[in-house]
Amino acid sequence: MTKHNFGAGPGILPKQALEKSAQAVLDLNGSGLSILEISHRSKDFDDILAKTKSLVKELLNVPDNYSILFLQGGASTQFAMVPMNLLPQGGKAAYVESGVWASKAAKEAKLFGEVELVASSKDRNFCYVPSGYSIPKDVAYLHLTSNNTIYGTQMSSFPESPVPVVCDMSSDIFSRPVDVSNFDLIYAGAQKNMGPAGVTLVIMKNDICGKAGRKIPTMLDYQTHIDNDSLFNTPPVFPIYVCMATLEWLKEIGGVPAIEKTNKEKAELLYSEIDSNPLFKGTADKESRSKMNVCFLLERPELEESFSSLLKANGIIGLKGHRSVGGFRASLYNALPVSSVEFLVSLMRDFAKSNG
Amino acid sequence: MTKHNFGAGPGILPKQALEKSAQAVLDLNGSGLSILEISHRSKDFDDILAKTKSLVKELLNVPDNYSILFLQGGASTQFAMVPMNLLPQGGKAAYVESGVWASKAAKEAKLFGEVELVASSKDRNFCYVPSGYSIPKDVAYLHLTSNNTIYGTQMSSFPESPVPVVCDMSSDIFSRPVDVSNFDLIYAGAQKNMGPAGVTLVIMKNDICGKAGRKIPTMLDYQTHIDNDSLFNTPPVFPIYVCMATLEWLKEIGGVPAIEKTNKEKAELLYSEIDSNPLFKGTADKESRSKMNVCFLLERPELEESFSSLLKANGIIGLKGHRSVGGFRASLYNALPVSSVEFLVSLMRDFAKSNG
Repeated sequence: MTKHNFGAGPGILPKQALEKSAQAVLDLNGSGLSILEISHRSKDFDDILAKTKSLVKELLNVPDNYSILFLQGGASTQFAMVPMNLLPQGGKAAYVESGVWASKAAKEAKLFGEVELVASSKDRNFCYVPSGYSIPKDVAYLHLTSNNTIYGTQMSSFPESPVPVVCDMSSDIFSRPVDVSNFDLIYAGAQKNMGPAGVTLVIMKNDICGKAGRKIPTMLDYQTHIDNDSLFNTPPVFPIYVCMATLEWLKEIGGVPAIEKTNKEKAELLYSEIDSNPLFKGTADKESRSKMNVCFLLERPELEESFSSLLKANGIIGLKGHRSVGGFRASLYNALPVSSVEFLVSLMRDFAKSNG
Repeated sequence: MTKHNFGAGPGILPKQALEKSAQAVLDLNGSGLSILEISHRSKDFDDILAKTKSLVKELLNVPDNYSILFLQGGASTQFAMVPMNLLPQGGKAAYVESGVWASKAAKEAKLFGEVELVASSKDRNFCYVPSGYSIPKDVAYLHLTSNNTIYGTQMSSFPESPVPVVCDMSSDIFSRPVDVSNFDLIYAGAQKNMGPAGVTLVIMKNDICGKAGRKIPTMLDYQTHIDNDSLFNTPPVFPIYVCMATLEWLKEIGGVPAIEKTNKEKAELLYSEIDSNPLFKGTADKESRSKMNVCFLLERPELEESFSSLLKANGIIGLKGHRSVGGFRASLYNALPVSSVEFLVSLMRDFAKSNG
């Protein structure tokens, strides 16, 4: 049975990238060695790292005055590294609380300075993206979360900001064009649209470090990784390789503008079914809906178990909603084909017929 | 041509583990999904994590009052996490400086308290393991490095200590039995004997956190990972899987006592050639010699290029010494077969004949 992977992450990756990566585990480019047993100081890995960086630069149109880093520890480690590096002693940072991950980011910043929550959507369980807030001019930076995986909300545009903007793009990077030059720092755990778990992408302006006025442990200092091109210590070699293979695929199919078109198509298919099918309802406010994570409930919760069984019987994976929202969540990451969404929609229609 | 991988790390892994891992990248246990695209909250990954932990526990005989954690960031991140968590404000820690990695560990500790270097072998470029030093009783812990990859030195035994012992075992863990109960905390980057780059093993007593008296960022607080069983955020799923497959292999061939025997055999083969062949000489003091990394020079440096060509022509990989020692370094990690060492020795003999 074909599996349709709607998981929220680690999520579906392109078959072509998986096959190339499996081959590299057996034998990298006919070298007689596995990608898992080559030195990170080898020519082979130099090429992989350079290629991955250049794909990130090209696909996201990263300006020349930015560094592209491959780190470890996930976005959760960035929650601490950002204020450690960018929030001066006694300084203040502004955070938009658009979900529990944004809250966690703000919590870490409080260890290093003052945090001003400029907006929050906690009042309605984060079912919308805050807007219309004002951004203070006396803060070191504004921290945003572009897509909120748990609640299925996404910033459709970014606010004009008088201060540097830092953005967690873990769950929608590479899904749509962004103007990198509007951000001082972007970070993203790879395990949604970019690759597997175990590597974190950081894209940052070269000159923003060194102003926090505190001693920073070497591995937590962005400058260490800028100066050493992500090779201060052994990087996560294989996760970087899979990112390379995934971004090669993305480039081949037309890059970020092409995938944005497909992602829109998938999201429109599913949202229009949710809106027209009497059995289902979306949880996020319409103007805040995410094109990456589509959260929905059954109008009659007693049908949940039966719908779940139908999904399971048809090879639909990872559709269970996060416990804090309940119901269902379909993640429509780059590698998910339109046909999987069409199939899910057909099941929703069938289900409505049988329970109408 | 068969390749013989003597690389210092990421290093050679067992063929069986590579094949199992490549298969899992294509399809994990017939699930229809790749190991790279499953949720870290899935039953499949729960099983993988539990199995890997139980293999670590069994193979190293880890006592019940210890936690086994799978973190990110390598030993270099542990250099900071250890003092951040274990060195109280205004307190002191003792470090043995047996190489440049030990120095780096001590440097990070200085950010958090006072460091007493109780011994150093820097005077002779770290070609021996310091001994005969006394360990102060007023320090929070003693930090050791069991094996010094760059210089080919290894602690053949550990000092009796009146204070808790923390040990970086990155390059010799699982190569020989150790009595874990003599240590409060052991850490190791996986990429030598345990698996690929991208995961760091920490084995620590459960009750040693929470005494440092400082605020610790969530991801850098060991307690976070103890409380969440390494699942506070997305762990490096695939690197953990490869560790599982590698440790399964180790268990099948007889566990740590069996591999210790093989490792001794390999080291004796190579050291006895170095000592008897007039063209070669070892760099480490004999009583400090590592069974993992064997460093040696040519008596006539002008022959280096010719020896290197011979190695290359015969599929010997990764034998170049670290720039701070020069010459050659043969890493004899667990997965390297005795036959590879026999082959290297035969080449050294041939080389002596042609250049005798």
